[in-house]
Amino acid sequence: MTVQFDRIALIGIGLIGSSLAHDIKRLGLAKEVVIATRSAETLKRAEELELGDRYTTSSAEAVKDADLVIVSVPVGASEAVAKEIAGSLKPGAIVTDVGSTKASVIAQMQPHMPDNVHFIPGHPLAGTEKSGPDAGFPGLFAGRWCIFTPLEGTDEKALAALSRFWETLGSKIDVMDPEHHDKVLAIVSHLPHLIAFNIVGTADDLGTVTESEVIKYSASGFRDFTRLAASDPTMWRDVCLHNKDAILEMLARFSEDLAYLQRAIRWGEGDKIFDLFTRTRAIRRSIIEAGQDVDAPDFGRPHTLDKKG
Amino acid sequence: MTVQFDRIALIGIGLIGSSLAHDIKRLGLAKEVVIATRSAETLKRAEELELGDRYTTSSAEAVKDADLVIVSVPVGASEAVAKEIAGSLKPGAIVTDVGSTKASVIAQMQPHMPDNVHFIPGHPLAGTEKSGPDAGFPGLFAGRWCIFTPLEGTDEKALAALSRFWETLGSKIDVMDPEHHDKVLAIVSHLPHLIAFNIVGTADDLGTVTESEVIKYSASGFRDFTRLAASDPTMWRDVCLHNKDAILEMLARFSEDLAYLQRAIRWGEGDKIFDLFTRTRAIRRSIIEAGQDVDAPDFGRPHTLDKKG
Ligand SMILES: NC(=O)c1ccc[n+]([C@@H]2O[C@H](COP(=O)([O-])OP(=O)(O)OC[C@H]3O[C@@H](n4cnc5c(N)ncnc54)[C@H](OP(=O)(O)O)[C@@H]3O)[C@@H](O)[C@H]2O)c1
Ligand SMILES: NC(=O)c1ccc[n+]([C@@H]2O[C@H](COP(=O)([O-])OP(=O)(O)OC[C@H]3O[C@@H](n4cnc5c(N)ncnc54)[C@H](OP(=O)(O)O)[C@@H]3O)[C@@H](O)[C@H]2O)c1
Repeated sequence: MTVQFDRIALIGIGLIGSSLAHDIKRLGLAKEVVIATRSAETLKRAEELELGDRYTTSSAEAVKDADLVIVSVPVGASEAVAKEIAGSLKPGAIVTDVGSTKASVIAQMQPHMPDNVHFIPGHPLAGTEKSGPDAGFPGLFAGRWCIFTPLEGTDEKALAALSRFWETLGSKIDVMDPEHHDKVLAIVSHLPHLIAFNIVGTADDLGTVTESEVIKYSASGFRDFTRLAASDPTMWRDVCLHNKDAILEMLARFSEDLAYLQRAIRWGEGDKIFDLFTRTRAIRRSIIEAGQDVDAPDFGRPHTLDKKG
Repeated sequence: MTVQFDRIALIGIGLIGSSLAHDIKRLGLAKEVVIATRSAETLKRAEELELGDRYTTSSAEAVKDADLVIVSVPVGASEAVAKEIAGSLKPGAIVTDVGSTKASVIAQMQPHMPDNVHFIPGHPLAGTEKSGPDAGFPGLFAGRWCIFTPLEGTDEKALAALSRFWETLGSKIDVMDPEHHDKVLAIVSHLPHLIAFNIVGTADDLGTVTESEVIKYSASGFRDFTRLAASDPTMWRDVCLHNKDAILEMLARFSEDLAYLQRAIRWGEGDKIFDLFTRTRAIRRSIIEAGQDVDAPDFGRPHTLDKKG
């Protein structure tokens, strides 16, 4: 593989940052990778995992002479990071991020970006429910979408270079405006996570059914939600606070629909219930046909007999 | 393996009925298996799959001389089946079911059961989102719970024989009263399914985000819900109608909790959000430790690189 950037600085080295580090190394995309993270503890772990070439707790230090800077921190920390790195960025550098919300990240970072760098906001739609530097792995981004929400007047060459980088990681590129991104993500990602956090919370609080019963019998449906509800609390708190309007809109729609379903159950309106349940089946089929999920029953989880052979 | 019942009648041959048929055959638990289903079409398919020894569309015909009768139809059809088979049951026969709600099934079936048969309501907590005779497979019940909700005065020997049957299939037995069963299942299974149906419905109805975008980007969370929302509409309509009180109670609690979360988002109360999101993480851990789900990131779904080798 060919070197695409002489020096890449990774600011934040959790699940996303460390997965980037694995891929950059594996594919030889940089001569040098500099890693910065807030805590000495995480930095030490990144070093033990040999994720980069140089390590520092100073983001300003890390970005010096870097041709590509990738910020992978919770979205609420975007402004602080932007301020910290602003004065040390190399003229002509590309600065991008991976945050799950885009309008807020732009509002936080853009005002601090010098005119002579290319700030291109991005969001790879790839991840798992795990976090921290140990959670990353090579190939996380392969076959997944990476959405850019470029600002007006973005340099075509810089955008092409960044696209090429993500494509080398195996991602497919999409471009949209930040507001639309935030609406789309509110429904496909943020609402599902909130609902999952919420239902797991409800189950934790019951008087009549004990927590040990919930755990024991969770395979009958509940466990599917617990995966999303195990995601990082800081990251998701920040998503809630930084995509508030779109999330509140989706929550309102969801609640209205739920009230309708609740009423149908109360009044025994079997036809209404049946209609909704029939409609939703089709979407699963489309997702599988679009290659966006496995078709195997139960997500292909092993059943006891399979293990025996 | 040893024959446990001379003749077993399976009434209903969908996912559950056909999985039972596979196991009975594989383990040699009966000398003869008689299969009954409502439609000629499903019956033909059961015959093509060689699921039993005799086939009929008459449940009354099927139960004649059967020592064990297992009813595996949507819970709303329980009374009609009970009426149909009542006059043909063999004295001393065990009649059981697999329905996902228990108080309603008992209310529907018990009044029709002759005094000389052993009616023992049951519910195996095993299944997938697929349905029909092709969806069944051997080993579906292995390592999973089967809950009995026996009536007062149930014959110990009959209960022991039925327990042995399910244990031979690899299930673990639990006994509880029907009302408690219905509450437990309302939270661990019925509410998650309803929420999944509902959120997929909401996503289907948006003006600003198209359905093709929802499908395209579904891997960022949404797709987890679509599996449950692809479950059989008839089965789930019946569950809603026949466990109404417990479901409405759980829905009310869920909605209250969601309103609290919504308010916290609106007012930017990061601490409240963070607290909830932290609490829910622990439950996932307990479920994995209890062996009720896989620990692999993303339910162990393949990532592109894994496939390449
Ligand atoms: N997880 C996903 O599935 C996913 C998918 C797509 C996009 N994203 C986005 O990617 C970003 C990173 O997520 P992640 O999953 O990689 O998170 P993570 O595993 O929790 O790692 C977070 C990283 O950010 C640093 N950090 C945390 N708080 C900070 C703060 N206040 N100031 C500066 N640095 C801070 C952490 O440093 P220390 O450990 O040293 O404190 C760590 O290096 C987020 O914006 C998220 O929205 C996540
Ligand atoms: N699916 C699960 O995950 C799961 C798990 C545990 C328990 N259960 C319970 O198991 C039972 C069967 O579920 P399943 O998943 O096996 O369903 P399924 O695959 O849809 O099969 C349903 C069977 O019931 C028959 N049937 C449907 N409507 C009927 C009616 N009105 N009268 C008489 N027979 C009728 C069908 O006959 P035709 O095809 O000939 O019409 C078919 O043989 C339900 O009570 C369900 O609550 C399901």
